[in-house]
Amino acid sequence: MKLYGYWRSLATFRVRIALNLKGIAYDETIVDLHKGEQLQAAYRSINPQGVLPSLFDDGDGTPLFQSLAILEYLDETHPQPPLLPRAPRDRSRVRGLALIAAADAHPLVVPRVRNYLGKEFNVDEPARIAWGRHWLAQGCAALEANLAADPRTGRYCHGDSPTLADICLASHMAGAKLFDVDTSPYPTCERIRDACFALEAFAKAHPLKQPGAPKP
Amino acid sequence: MKLYGYWRSLATFRVRIALNLKGIAYDETIVDLHKGEQLQAAYRSINPQGVLPSLFDDGDGTPLFQSLAILEYLDETHPQPPLLPRAPRDRSRVRGLALIAAADAHPLVVPRVRNYLGKEFNVDEPARIAWGRHWLAQGCAALEANLAADPRTGRYCHGDSPTLADICLASHMAGAKLFDVDTSPYPTCERIRDACFALEAFAKAHPLKQPGAPKP
Repeated sequence: MKLYGYWRSLATFRVRIALNLKGIAYDETIVDLHKGEQLQAAYRSINPQGVLPSLFDDGDGTPLFQSLAILEYLDETHPQPPLLPRAPRDRSRVRGLALIAAADAHPLVVPRVRNYLGKEFNVDEPARIAWGRHWLAQGCAALEANLAADPRTGRYCHGDSPTLADICLASHMAGAKLFDVDTSPYPTCERIRDACFALEAFAKAHPLKQPGAPKP
Repeated sequence: MKLYGYWRSLATFRVRIALNLKGIAYDETIVDLHKGEQLQAAYRSINPQGVLPSLFDDGDGTPLFQSLAILEYLDETHPQPPLLPRAPRDRSRVRGLALIAAADAHPLVVPRVRNYLGKEFNVDEPARIAWGRHWLAQGCAALEANLAADPRTGRYCHGDSPTLADICLASHMAGAKLFDVDTSPYPTCERIRDACFALEAFAKAHPLKQPGAPKP
């Protein structure tokens, strides 16, 4: 498959993890968010919204978009190992946890939002970082409250194998690290993050291991 | 089923539409967002994140959370009429369109975000409204670009029967109306919105038709 992504894009990171878990080979084309390449005509012809990632499955010219929609596609077309449990109620829980991270927190910390805060409201960089930290910490708190209270939580967010929820938790926790959020008040999130990154599929997908990332 | 919601909550609106489309009877318990009831202990025991909606299916004590995860649950447990097409690529498109509205736009305009802008950045009410309009218009533009360019767009977002994407488009356009966004640059969005609200299932779920809503 052909993935359009960028090292720092947490949404691209999610898709990379799923491709790795499913054992699907892919090439990644870099769309440099810092240079604004996602907004140029060449990429917009693939993704009219001008956001990352996009994915082309081999043999069909239609691009897939929005990371969670791509994860569902990969799970439907490559069912092993499954990224969702079987029972509808459990599937809904996994999707709900995924959305807490990917829908309620992540869209608030992306470059286009930080840029608006600076340009329209004169919010300086330290305050923009505080903004990012606030929403990422709120996401951690929501995940922690759900995970800690539910007996279905196991080694991973739901039972003992990774699901969509873990992919989104891992990207959320990586984002929290990039923003230097103190995640010690969220021990279940930290424990599951560590379980995720012990897996090669997660570890090698990490933003800081991609071409173009800053050296540690 | 038992729904916890509020008239102005666009996420609750989405679940109401799906319940109506599926012909599922439900009672709605009001959680007053303007009074902050979603953050009180009583509701947090149901929804630890303190957000709307939550849904209880009859005969099981576990609450469902996050509107898109609830919609998927309803579609899996009550398959008729389907809210997703059959082919994985088409399902992914529908979910992607739904996420443009529900994940990339809606989380930016909710009360907790508007409150943060006022309290932490001293952003006044007119500027907060401009913020809301900006992100809702961006969502319309992204939806319009995808819908207008894709031959799979029909009477509704995908073909000629309503899907998850239409539920999210309808809630997005209702949000745009609440914020007084000029949606005339997005004729496909307007056309599909009108097709949706011609259906009783959408029309009677509308925020302004719920108990507590301001009179027209």
